[in-house]
Amino acid sequence: MNEDKNIIIIGCGAGGGTAAQFARKTDRKANIAVFEKDKYPQYSKCGLPYLVSDEISDFKNLIEFSEEWFKKNKIDLFLETTVTKIDTKNQKIIADKKGEKIERKYSSLIICTGAKPSIPLIKNIKQNNKFVNGIHLIRTISDIKKIKSEIKKNMKVTIVGAGLIGLEMADNLHKIGVDITIVEALPNILANIFDLDIAEIVRKNIPNDVKIFTDSIVTEIKNEKDKIKKVIIKNRETKKEQKIDTDMLILCVGVTPETKLAESIGCKIGKTGGIIVNRKSETNIKNIYAVGDCTEYKDFVTKKPIGIGLGSIVVRQAIAAGINAAGKKYNLLPGFLQTSTSHFFGIEIASVGLNSKHLEKKSVVSAKYSGKSLPEYYPGGKPITIKVLADKKTEKILGVQAVGDNAAKRVNTFAAAMLGNLNINTFKKLETAYAPPIAPTLDAETLVCDILDMKIKRK
Amino acid sequence: MNEDKNIIIIGCGAGGGTAAQFARKTDRKANIAVFEKDKYPQYSKCGLPYLVSDEISDFKNLIEFSEEWFKKNKIDLFLETTVTKIDTKNQKIIADKKGEKIERKYSSLIICTGAKPSIPLIKNIKQNNKFVNGIHLIRTISDIKKIKSEIKKNMKVTIVGAGLIGLEMADNLHKIGVDITIVEALPNILANIFDLDIAEIVRKNIPNDVKIFTDSIVTEIKNEKDKIKKVIIKNRETKKEQKIDTDMLILCVGVTPETKLAESIGCKIGKTGGIIVNRKSETNIKNIYAVGDCTEYKDFVTKKPIGIGLGSIVVRQAIAAGINAAGKKYNLLPGFLQTSTSHFFGIEIASVGLNSKHLEKKSVVSAKYSGKSLPEYYPGGKPITIKVLADKKTEKILGVQAVGDNAAKRVNTFAAAMLGNLNINTFKKLETAYAPPIAPTLDAETLVCDILDMKIKRK
Repeated sequence: MNEDKNIIIIGCGAGGGTAAQFARKTDRKANIAVFEKDKYPQYSKCGLPYLVSDEISDFKNLIEFSEEWFKKNKIDLFLETTVTKIDTKNQKIIADKKGEKIERKYSSLIICTGAKPSIPLIKNIKQNNKFVNGIHLIRTISDIKKIKSEIKKNMKVTIVGAGLIGLEMADNLHKIGVDITIVEALPNILANIFDLDIAEIVRKNIPNDVKIFTDSIVTEIKNEKDKIKKVIIKNRETKKEQKIDTDMLILCVGVTPETKLAESIGCKIGKTGGIIVNRKSETNIKNIYAVGDCTEYKDFVTKKPIGIGLGSIVVRQAIAAGINAAGKKYNLLPGFLQTSTSHFFGIEIASVGLNSKHLEKKSVVSAKYSGKSLPEYYPGGKPITIKVLADKKTEKILGVQAVGDNAAKRVNTFAAAMLGNLNINTFKKLETAYAPPIAPTLDAETLVCDILDMKIKRK
Repeated sequence: MNEDKNIIIIGCGAGGGTAAQFARKTDRKANIAVFEKDKYPQYSKCGLPYLVSDEISDFKNLIEFSEEWFKKNKIDLFLETTVTKIDTKNQKIIADKKGEKIERKYSSLIICTGAKPSIPLIKNIKQNNKFVNGIHLIRTISDIKKIKSEIKKNMKVTIVGAGLIGLEMADNLHKIGVDITIVEALPNILANIFDLDIAEIVRKNIPNDVKIFTDSIVTEIKNEKDKIKKVIIKNRETKKEQKIDTDMLILCVGVTPETKLAESIGCKIGKTGGIIVNRKSETNIKNIYAVGDCTEYKDFVTKKPIGIGLGSIVVRQAIAAGINAAGKKYNLLPGFLQTSTSHFFGIEIASVGLNSKHLEKKSVVSAKYSGKSLPEYYPGGKPITIKVLADKKTEKILGVQAVGDNAAKRVNTFAAAMLGNLNINTFKKLETAYAPPIAPTLDAETLVCDILDMKIKRK
């Protein structure tokens, strides 16, 4: 192995941490350095909402790669250090650590600059270019610490965005007795992964005291003494407006890739705003890789570019970048399945592939099945609903949406089927594991495909 | 549809019941008749052990296709009626209902005669050609009723056979305070599906007061006044014998296909002793199908013949037979994956494909991974161990053994991968669903394949 190999990683989120880990696994001797502008090494951003309810008791628990871990693995970790420039000609980076200038050569560079939270256009959201008091994001440990320091029982909190993070946040705040209102611009909650019919099943399972306004946006904030007091929400259909008492507003409306540094050296940016990377997680620039929320890659089904919003994808890109940067070969799958899951208000949900919104209507046929997790005769069966979308002609699975018992593990089975290019007609014959206390002889997973197959054949 | 179509089904177990159901679904007008020698219509045999502990409160609950169901679906059901002869020349059957002779023509005939429990060679097991009092089988509702009428707390029960049913029975008897001894002839419990190392994990989780003797057989029964009193067990290695006080002996050592009727008309019998059927569930005789425990089919991996011992397989064969007998086409997959699962003593286990015993050692490589069901930082993670066997050259998955959290659903994911012919190198990149309360970013399912892939590449 080459002792003069210098791997530099910019950013120590899930991408940077995992890339460092796999670079080290691949090459025991290479010099590896990680630069992070924040004061914490890699921690799980996905775990942040659970700090609010103390489901996870200490933010330190979220740190998966600790400073000790970096030491043990002989990886140089620079915290509170911002990389200000990449010099591709001399293959070096220049960084600033509280005024101190650091220069370091790289043979491979991995950009993991992440993303910044998107801020919706809301009147009075800022004063003097700063958020009004009571307005919060959920992106960092500092964000959650701020929320925790201000939150109190019976407080009125409005959450903008009914995606996974918005609903996880709502659940954790609801657990500590907070009065929740959720405002979602799209026609249904979880609109990025679920069709309306499946989203409605989830919505019906959310307690009634959580108020949800879909097709609605927050247009204006009414402040009192520099502090939020009310928000005005507007229905996009009816144009009707109403005032909602709000002590705290939390913005969960997605993110924008942080690509400034990458753009400064000529990295190609794609349609979604992310750095374009290939199956090795390489950018268009020699020896420069990029990973995570700052990038875009291809969807498995359509092969069209998608932004990266899932921790599981970031980790897989980071494995590829880490291994390739360290000199071995590792190819990502030709596209991401976008398998995702969550659990809130006692409901497990999961999806893989694309929902109707992302597919051409005329080539898609779908079926839905609701059943029990156990045979009828065995006590304790739990409800499960699965919707499957398939291509009319090829019968290939395009997307799956699941709500209820073991939604995530069931969706994993579909993910494997999609990876194996199984069509509905074959998958419906899958022998799923059966035993009375575990599952019925014919599981919802295959029964839904049986219905779908009949639908396709009837056409 | 042809109103003169006469579908006759011999036997109303899971096979017969499901075949009738799918024949009716396929042809709304065909004449369908089912003949069953027992007094109950189709019920779940797999549910029987749970009656002992009242986990399932009433044996009637196990009946999935009731007499009312048959009426509603216009299917003639003959209970307590034995088909004594098949006349293939005139395409009719002759049956006996308590002395009354019934003749009926068929255009399609489906044989679902099931299997009879195997009886091990044990000295004094019978007197005057009848079991000694206290010796039991678990095959029918009547068997379980007999056990329930005799069983009492603190009774000493010896179970012969540590397969799925033996262990399920042990768990249910243990729940009601019975003193359990299990005797298994093979070197480990669950030897048909698990390698020794995985079986040991299960064994360690079984409470200490359940005594398990592997590599051992019951050689003799010591009776007192027509009733069992002790059994003598012998270790097959050490030849050491010991006496075990036993009030009840339960035999769970597998079954032998019931093929007498099929053989009488020239149905071909295979190496395993079952009727040979093809992908349509047809026998070698025109218009005659066979389904379930009386048949044999091919293993998915080796394509070699296997006996049918799993309810899930029976049901799939029955779907094929029912649809084909009713005039539509339905092909089974080219072999059975043999996905199986169970839950006893609080442990979930599952497997798919073959274990080492059934594979040629020199072409197989395996890896094992033990981890947690959740990220380290999230409370409540449960242990999960997965072992994967793959072909050294092709990297195709040959078998999977799992113990712990959601073993069955995890094994389903591997089953889909096997059906899609995915190799380890691709499957290890599968995006499994990730969220802190649900699963880690990299799940045990893919981590075990990563280890296996490295092992293969190192060779």
